[in-house]
Amino acid sequence: MTDSRPLQPGEIPSDATVPKVVVSRISLYLRELQRLQAAGQQTISSSQLGTLLGFSDAQVRKDLGFFGQFGYPGVGYRCEELISAMRDILGTNHAWPVVMLGVGNLGQALLGYRGFGRQNFSIEAAFDADPAKVGQVIQGVRVHPLDELPAIVKSRGIRLGMIVVPAERAQEAADRLVSAGIEGIVNFAPVTLTLPPHVQSVSVDLAIELEQLSFAVTSQLAKASL
Amino acid sequence: MTDSRPLQPGEIPSDATVPKVVVSRISLYLRELQRLQAAGQQTISSSQLGTLLGFSDAQVRKDLGFFGQFGYPGVGYRCEELISAMRDILGTNHAWPVVMLGVGNLGQALLGYRGFGRQNFSIEAAFDADPAKVGQVIQGVRVHPLDELPAIVKSRGIRLGMIVVPAERAQEAADRLVSAGIEGIVNFAPVTLTLPPHVQSVSVDLAIELEQLSFAVTSQLAKASL
Repeated sequence: MTDSRPLQPGEIPSDATVPKVVVSRISLYLRELQRLQAAGQQTISSSQLGTLLGFSDAQVRKDLGFFGQFGYPGVGYRCEELISAMRDILGTNHAWPVVMLGVGNLGQALLGYRGFGRQNFSIEAAFDADPAKVGQVIQGVRVHPLDELPAIVKSRGIRLGMIVVPAERAQEAADRLVSAGIEGIVNFAPVTLTLPPHVQSVSVDLAIELEQLSFAVTSQLAKASL
Repeated sequence: MTDSRPLQPGEIPSDATVPKVVVSRISLYLRELQRLQAAGQQTISSSQLGTLLGFSDAQVRKDLGFFGQFGYPGVGYRCEELISAMRDILGTNHAWPVVMLGVGNLGQALLGYRGFGRQNFSIEAAFDADPAKVGQVIQGVRVHPLDELPAIVKSRGIRLGMIVVPAERAQEAADRLVSAGIEGIVNFAPVTLTLPPHVQSVSVDLAIELEQLSFAVTSQLAKASL
């Protein structure tokens, strides 16, 4: 079926061919707009937004163009409106309950990470194989035994899960999430997971930021020594 | 001074105007190539590499073109050579010692994170204000009192630092790193730091991956319901 009416702001294109890299820039735009709004700024132009993040204004307009028409002639974008549209795009205009598998040091740190709540994600329940951890309440989140995962996912309508177990147990954790009905997985373990095609996943690689920094420091040195 | 000779592979362009987003894709290419090499693959084309990461072959060639000429006609890229060139570009062809400020849950988790060592980063010393933590050795790394920071940075020639303290103490930690002579900072605290222009920094936002996942799950749902 061909659908030729123009997109409404925030509407997801029905052909769903938005490149991943565009979606990741939407997160960056959103974060910058949230900072600007917190500082009291009401409107912004594509070139201001681009400059703050190191992109061209054409890039900003093209990225937003995937999702509709947002700006006003002579005004630019209204921060509040664009933030709301971006949350619609990303699907974070409503709260997402999340389960976490693995409550080691990283898991415990993530339970206390305030950045999740700010973007509308809330870790509802944690799970661990270690009987010593089961029953504990960490940062307000209860640690359950693994066999309670399917019932909790189902009864609370949870669709997203985080894997924070050691690398060698990550695939088993993924299998458990998949059979419990989870649709999206954030993987903090440094291994590639095998997943059925209907389950989405993203991996977190904490060394990427250090590499970017190493480049910045190295290339600045190259500049300084010219 | 104008320098018109062609770039050698891995050489950083002297005008240093490589967009940040290109540098972040170099990290992604490198990680994918490392995976392929570990699986025994010797060569790869720009379109294969692009397909694996969701970019066009033109994008891959354009990104690499910032840094020189790497491929061979009819062969594509040699994985080992391209990995080595990308490490030259990113500056990770040699080991980077790193200091860490803050040894709470997240800090302790990062001390055990094997992904850093794999990309040539090694946390050499950790620092904490808590006297109960000072003197401990965690994952082979000793925790020092904060006042030892300048001497250790200087004597070991350390240029990179990680901030893993609570948000309200992140700026103080940054100031300490800067006055100790650190040139690049990875900030895990969810606040914006004020830094002198000669100090580079990158921020880690752990909610970005969840947003990308929320988009993927939401847009898949939109597709399925058409």
